[in-house]
Amino acid sequence: MTGLSVLDEATAVQRVGGGWYQVRPDPRFAIVAPGGAVPSAMNGGVMVATALRAVLDTSPHPYPVATSAHFLRVPRLEPAEVEVTWLKQGRTAATARATVVQDSLPVLEVTVTTGNLPPDPASNGELSWTGEPPRLPPIEECVNLGHWAGTVGPDGTAGYAAQVDLRLDPATTGWRRGEPAGIPEMRGYFRLREDRDPDAYLLALAVDGLPPVVFGLGAAGWSPTVELTWHMRAVPAPGPLRVATRCRHVSGGWFDEEAEVWDAAGRLVAQSRQIARVGRSSRARDPA
Amino acid sequence: MTGLSVLDEATAVQRVGGGWYQVRPDPRFAIVAPGGAVPSAMNGGVMVATALRAVLDTSPHPYPVATSAHFLRVPRLEPAEVEVTWLKQGRTAATARATVVQDSLPVLEVTVTTGNLPPDPASNGELSWTGEPPRLPPIEECVNLGHWAGTVGPDGTAGYAAQVDLRLDPATTGWRRGEPAGIPEMRGYFRLREDRDPDAYLLALAVDGLPPVVFGLGAAGWSPTVELTWHMRAVPAPGPLRVATRCRHVSGGWFDEEAEVWDAAGRLVAQSRQIARVGRSSRARDPA
Repeated sequence: MTGLSVLDEATAVQRVGGGWYQVRPDPRFAIVAPGGAVPSAMNGGVMVATALRAVLDTSPHPYPVATSAHFLRVPRLEPAEVEVTWLKQGRTAATARATVVQDSLPVLEVTVTTGNLPPDPASNGELSWTGEPPRLPPIEECVNLGHWAGTVGPDGTAGYAAQVDLRLDPATTGWRRGEPAGIPEMRGYFRLREDRDPDAYLLALAVDGLPPVVFGLGAAGWSPTVELTWHMRAVPAPGPLRVATRCRHVSGGWFDEEAEVWDAAGRLVAQSRQIARVGRSSRARDPA
Repeated sequence: MTGLSVLDEATAVQRVGGGWYQVRPDPRFAIVAPGGAVPSAMNGGVMVATALRAVLDTSPHPYPVATSAHFLRVPRLEPAEVEVTWLKQGRTAATARATVVQDSLPVLEVTVTTGNLPPDPASNGELSWTGEPPRLPPIEECVNLGHWAGTVGPDGTAGYAAQVDLRLDPATTGWRRGEPAGIPEMRGYFRLREDRDPDAYLLALAVDGLPPVVFGLGAAGWSPTVELTWHMRAVPAPGPLRVATRCRHVSGGWFDEEAEVWDAAGRLVAQSRQIARVGRSSRARDPA
């Protein structure tokens, strides 16, 4: 591969000094509103990945083991800064706070604990255990969401949905034809359309990469994430990621969404839970 | 009830000004080391509850909907300060950062998003859904952990284990007699020994209130929490809390632990996931 991938370009940070970084949100990962409005909001996962890149720039450990993100304001397609403050740098773990700022206001507060992850295969008799993996049909039997509605803006810009290739288990796509399954679950294969192996930055997108799990209950519309914490458990192997989400409780306009991400080698590589707001629209439509 | 409860006294904060609070960690919630060493470390849940009390002192919303806690250093039984910084105060949600400091070093970094929670019963046809509750035997058939080993220090102080009343499902207590079930799950009833109804502060303890889930796999010893995020989903009814934990992956010395907390009225009131380090001891023993 020559040059940087689209995702690497879109999450690049420029060190200014004193823990500050300049970032330029990339229109290729903007959220293009259904109906073709000019993109103005950024995908949240890309903003978290950008903050992670700033944190890892000076981290004594290579992997973001625990990343807690509180979404304060909608990140806009405008220049931003990230301020990284190290709270602790220990032998096993280091913790930094990263604040993404636009127009002097914090839009995203991320706390990251970095550390090491196990080699593969697991070594020297240490405790190792994994639960059952999600069951997905073969990728060729899954539903290709394609360049879904709103992907391309009126000015020809192509946003987030043009970058990711999402194939959903047909059992979880009834909402697309107005027949939600009545179960808040989604399962699918997630990868970039470009040829780029998964890593921590792509996992930051994958843990929030499927349509909102409440679409399975008939909810619709944009479901803004309020808080999302994810854990990186292993370095992903090349190939499409398998993502399975579920929800445990919806009430008062709040819902939780838990995601597990498994790599092509069959290992659990990331886990997340988010709390989000139920969308206001009256019926389900493609995500945007 | 006359006066404050023990938990309310132990999590009290004194406003100093400029977002700073003074706190006095309470020996009644200290961790007393097995063997009876003088208590010096504080229970992590109590420190999170203390930080929450500082945040809620100036929050425009009443409940901590999302609380992310990164544990940086072992909180000691010494005076501490909490600095609260509001990052956003919105109509639906407000987010604050709270840093617990001892000897000028951050020991605990907590980010809290506050909001409102649904009235009971849920109102006006809004989307409402809940997964299956955990199955526990009746409380009288559960194993009373009692004032477990190390509860009382040599100077007569009684720590954390003397404050909580924990009754475990016998199916999850084989590790106590050297026969771990081989499944990383715990289930039990959690309440204070004092007569005090559950609330957000008690939930902060309950989400990390059962023995480490990896005891079910034969691990043992202290399993330090590195990061724990919990979501409050409803205001708990009076009565003992039912807590169920599970784990999905153990490797490289890291394990995750997910908890659900249900109230005596049968509602899901809190959810958490933490990432922690597997203890170093060679066999399971009572938690301390």
